[in-house]
Amino acid sequence: MDITSTSLSLNEKTHHDTAPGVVVYVCRSCRSEADPNADPRPGATLAQAAIALGDAEGVNVRSVNCLANCKRGLSAAIRSADGWSYMFGSLSEDDAADLMVGARLLASAPDGLMPWRGRPDSLKRGLVARIPPLNFTEETS
Amino acid sequence: MDITSTSLSLNEKTHHDTAPGVVVYVCRSCRSEADPNADPRPGATLAQAAIALGDAEGVNVRSVNCLANCKRGLSAAIRSADGWSYMFGSLSEDDAADLMVGARLLASAPDGLMPWRGRPDSLKRGLVARIPPLNFTEETS
Repeated sequence: MDITSTSLSLNEKTHHDTAPGVVVYVCRSCRSEADPNADPRPGATLAQAAIALGDAEGVNVRSVNCLANCKRGLSAAIRSADGWSYMFGSLSEDDAADLMVGARLLASAPDGLMPWRGRPDSLKRGLVARIPPLNFTEETS
Repeated sequence: MDITSTSLSLNEKTHHDTAPGVVVYVCRSCRSEADPNADPRPGATLAQAAIALGDAEGVNVRSVNCLANCKRGLSAAIRSADGWSYMFGSLSEDDAADLMVGARLLASAPDGLMPWRGRPDSLKRGLVARIPPLNFTEETS
């Protein structure tokens, strides 16, 4: 399987898109701290699993060569067209399903913010940062 | 000064926009590790300085209440419309000018990637992560 390819769902439009306007980017280069020379790299394994699951579940998943989050374990970004974007680290090879849940949570959020409630533990513990939409103006708090 | 406001440059369109398509978001809530109770918070000081400088230099700067990068010192994101977005931590109150340089570097990058060369040290050392543009598809490497 070519893990650099995108999930089929969005290319072929054969599936129902369950997280419209959201793309999950998984870093395929992330290494294991415990075994830096592991081959395939754990990031590649997670990327492959997430792409396959995204294809099955209608979530747009792409692998990427580097998210520059290298010090913080397996990494993925969940990016939305009009809302906030989220960077996660400290993921495991088994977290593909959690990324699908996060993508759907973000896609269905009326305020463009991924709700805390319902978020899988890996996307709570692993939160690295979030970036506002392009023309975000906050109310005075 | 209301630090929740955006820089005037983009609202009033009176200045030359030197980083078109790019917005700098500065977290105004970031605390000092050395003095967590400092008031104003160092993040607010950096945000205020960056907004003033952005106004003078034609860079769109906005303050934001939280970028969820709280463990990694003073934080800012440089977000582009069509390119990559970057998250930085470990900034100091004096790094407003560096953020302007980074914004212009990103705005002028033909490939949407902020070049390493020419990047201020604070934006090299402080790089936390980068997020691809929404519909990024990488060539097979």
